[in-house]
Amino acid sequence: MTDYTPPAVWTWDTENGGKFASTNRPIAGPTHDKTLPVGEHPYQLYSLATPNGVKVTVLFEELIEAGHDFDYDAWLINIGEGDQFGSGFVEANPNSKIPALVDRSGDAPVRIFESAAIMLTLAERYGAFLGKPEDRPEMLSWLFWQMGSAPFLGGGFGHFYAYAPEKLEYPINRYAMEAKRQLDVLNRHLEGRDWMAGDSYTIADMAIWSWYGQLVLGRLYDAAEFLDVASYANVVRWAEAIDARPAVKRGRMVNRAFGEPELQLHERHSASDFETNTEDKRAAE
Amino acid sequence: MTDYTPPAVWTWDTENGGKFASTNRPIAGPTHDKTLPVGEHPYQLYSLATPNGVKVTVLFEELIEAGHDFDYDAWLINIGEGDQFGSGFVEANPNSKIPALVDRSGDAPVRIFESAAIMLTLAERYGAFLGKPEDRPEMLSWLFWQMGSAPFLGGGFGHFYAYAPEKLEYPINRYAMEAKRQLDVLNRHLEGRDWMAGDSYTIADMAIWSWYGQLVLGRLYDAAEFLDVASYANVVRWAEAIDARPAVKRGRMVNRAFGEPELQLHERHSASDFETNTEDKRAAE
Repeated sequence: MTDYTPPAVWTWDTENGGKFASTNRPIAGPTHDKTLPVGEHPYQLYSLATPNGVKVTVLFEELIEAGHDFDYDAWLINIGEGDQFGSGFVEANPNSKIPALVDRSGDAPVRIFESAAIMLTLAERYGAFLGKPEDRPEMLSWLFWQMGSAPFLGGGFGHFYAYAPEKLEYPINRYAMEAKRQLDVLNRHLEGRDWMAGDSYTIADMAIWSWYGQLVLGRLYDAAEFLDVASYANVVRWAEAIDARPAVKRGRMVNRAFGEPELQLHERHSASDFETNTEDKRAAE
Repeated sequence: MTDYTPPAVWTWDTENGGKFASTNRPIAGPTHDKTLPVGEHPYQLYSLATPNGVKVTVLFEELIEAGHDFDYDAWLINIGEGDQFGSGFVEANPNSKIPALVDRSGDAPVRIFESAAIMLTLAERYGAFLGKPEDRPEMLSWLFWQMGSAPFLGGGFGHFYAYAPEKLEYPINRYAMEAKRQLDVLNRHLEGRDWMAGDSYTIADMAIWSWYGQLVLGRLYDAAEFLDVASYANVVRWAEAIDARPAVKRGRMVNRAFGEPELQLHERHSASDFETNTEDKRAAE
């Protein structure tokens, strides 16, 4: 037990924060002037290959794989260096979080932020990965489930288990319990099912895979043993099926600036970018 | 600092949990058999007047106020008594959270869960409160923003500030900072604007109002002074405008089983239910 008593009015102590102290602030808005780069394609994505970023690049690659005729530029937003607080990024997403999309296919640029809002907008535009019309309520339920649930996994469990400056027992227990409950929700739902909604692969699968699929594949927070992810066998089976898709493999690489060097494609401007060895590219820069 | 070291594999300690210990579990699925009641209207809502519940009842009441010809039954789910773990509720929402909707207007019942999925489904069905087509990307961005942000306010700030069994300084600071950042995002966006997206009141306003509007109106967590909510003047102005709407007043009452007795309408089966004094009703039960 602690004997901490909160003050009457909270004030900002800039010493307190842990690994992401420099990226967490109690105020919004830009910290510096910086224009976003603009490429030649109709869609300009500003992102990083965290689970929220990967959702959108997986969908972009799936749409292209399925033959939809468009292309996109994906620019790296380095959140550790505060790129999300540049004036251009804040204009694209006033919430200063990746991913942000600027759609330049029309007369004037249109911003879209929040990963699932971007996904739903693109899927509706191309009439793809939405499932059958009669499955739309179930698809939307799971798409929104992911958005409301993952903050407990990422901002809750991941933060307190992996990133906070001290290991606090109560928050770790709270969020480990919730992460396991969420995995069990998915595991029960996927019993005898191939996909989250209806009988086809939808944006709900992509969104949930990016967080919970990658969690059971052992890629998040070094927590596979702690959460006993292997016990959620239906989730593992479903996650492996999605992970094997060529578009998913490409989507994971886009805007990746951490982890295995061979998976890192810092920026993407063409389908041929995946063919170039990224280590050679970096050496040439 | 603590000297806590997490175990290799997390296990369930049923002693740990705080105010909501009985409602937090590391497993999904039903704990008991219980069929859900079914009324005579096409929509059957199973909910509680927390911010996530109020979003949907506000939308239902706004649709009816706007003249759309349908009605709904709203049944109380008492989460303190574990109603969300009954077999019927779990069938309607495998995530065991309120609200859950069962649409009985078609040949077979269709479930929809997650508050914003319910809102988007209803708004699209009636073509109402969606804003102009050209504002859809902005409206969806804010609708999803609410879903991804409020877990930091409710499950984060509210839990550690108001409900956790001990006051922990680091989590309270972490989530107070984020709650204030989110309020500042809204305050900057609402500078010179009446509504969140475009020039009309949409489901994004309803969803964000239910959490952040009610927060600045002093209704959540007794935290108005701590978070200095009055300093977010644009949010307060916008919140008061929404709060004055007759449909919002009614929506707040539906499935309310806590707080001021005169605001409590435990169940709603007809528009005339609001005319009955609820204290008289309870006395007559």
